Amino acid sequence: MEIDICFSPVLYPFYRKENDTVIVVDVFRASATMCTMLANGATAVISVADIEEAKRYKSRGFLVGAERNARQCDFADFGNSPFDYTREKVAGKEVVFTTTNGTQAIDAAKSAKQLFVGTFSNLEALIQKSVEVGERVVILCAGWNNRANVEDTLFGGRFAEKLSEKTTVTLKSDAVKMALELWQSAKENPLEYLKSTEHYYRLIANGVKSDAEYCLKENSASVVPVYDKKTKKIIVSR
Amino acid sequence: MEIDICFSPVLYPFYRKENDTVIVVDVFRASATMCTMLANGATAVISVADIEEAKRYKSRGFLVGAERNARQCDFADFGNSPFDYTREKVAGKEVVFTTTNGTQAIDAAKSAKQLFVGTFSNLEALIQKSVEVGERVVILCAGWNNRANVEDTLFGGRFAEKLSEKTTVTLKSDAVKMALELWQSAKENPLEYLKSTEHYYRLIANGVKSDAEYCLKENSASVVPVYDKKTKKIIVSR
Repeated sequence: MEIDICFSPVLYPFYRKENDTVIVVDVFRASATMCTMLANGATAVISVADIEEAKRYKSRGFLVGAERNARQCDFADFGNSPFDYTREKVAGKEVVFTTTNGTQAIDAAKSAKQLFVGTFSNLEALIQKSVEVGERVVILCAGWNNRANVEDTLFGGRFAEKLSEKTTVTLKSDAVKMALELWQSAKENPLEYLKSTEHYYRLIANGVKSDAEYCLKENSASVVPVYDKKTKKIIVSR
Repeated sequence: MEIDICFSPVLYPFYRKENDTVIVVDVFRASATMCTMLANGATAVISVADIEEAKRYKSRGFLVGAERNARQCDFADFGNSPFDYTREKVAGKEVVFTTTNGTQAIDAAKSAKQLFVGTFSNLEALIQKSVEVGERVVILCAGWNNRANVEDTLFGGRFAEKLSEKTTVTLKSDAVKMALELWQSAKENPLEYLKSTEHYYRLIANGVKSDAEYCLKENSASVVPVYDKKTKKIIVSR
């Protein structure tokens, strides 16, 4: 297998190959939140990039999760905290979801052969699915406003490490090398490591420290969210 | 002072601030080559992104350096090896120069307040100039076809380390953190470290191993190339 890591949604055109399986990662917090809502029985996530579109869904009676700059938007039912999306609230329902970075990253890679959503929360399920696919996997980091960030890069390193334990992987990309190196420095205590990073400050400033811990915990959800090209919704991959 | 690192020319719009001094780095090899030609007495470098434009200059009698994918273009006087540009050949002359990645990176940052060209070759001169400027410095990595690469990122880490020895620097950017981490892993022997990277293979495949060594050597040139907005040429900063 081949793996690559792309540090920003706007860089994806320069990483794209024909049979890519893209895994969109937004560690803080959209990926974990999507995994949680689907694991808690939501039937689909409708990812929208635009606040106005999310509002139109809301007025038609949909459940809506909407976040900008680490805060819940006023009109929405939920923000971007995984703890918001309890089974009681989301089971059997579709959830419209828009976040600062995660949904934009999904938009950037909709043309890929397959698009999964991944993070530490569903690592094991993601690895299994990737080995089944057996082709090129690109970790697409949502970043922050198209800037590279540490937490998404760390996940890239963790994923590359784990995948290469399970199967033979070509690790020749420079970005993969950089991510693996970063992960080696952080792996003993990723939460501690991330305390000096930009986004962690933003989360703490918004009072969601427990979210950060949850988002770095491995295998809390055994689902792989996949973008369904026909319905344009994100559902659980079978 | 504030420092940031941008991993690809296409990301610069997301890093741009009003008073940026941008240092374009293309470690293998455009930055070292430009430093060398100016240190050897070339009066200016005319950086062009397009091969056809370089050919037009050639037909008007200019000296032209042109490289694509690590090889010298047939029509050109020089390729992208710093060793091509001897004092005998370039002193007192203007050199038109186009490379796979370096000149594109210069184009991406022409709107910055100041644009320098830098690499290990002129590190000390660059640090002095940056301290004089005293504002925000962005290391703009040329990368490889807009993809992040290890060697340019390493230079970013080295620059950030060196600058913070000389003055008080804000190192809060995630990209700076990543570059510093990478540099810590590589600093004992950068050449050895780079042997497993993509571009090093390309250089070796084209028989220019000695170029790689030269490009990683610190302070072989005491010039800071600066983009002159009036003449649109790169000259030695006074």
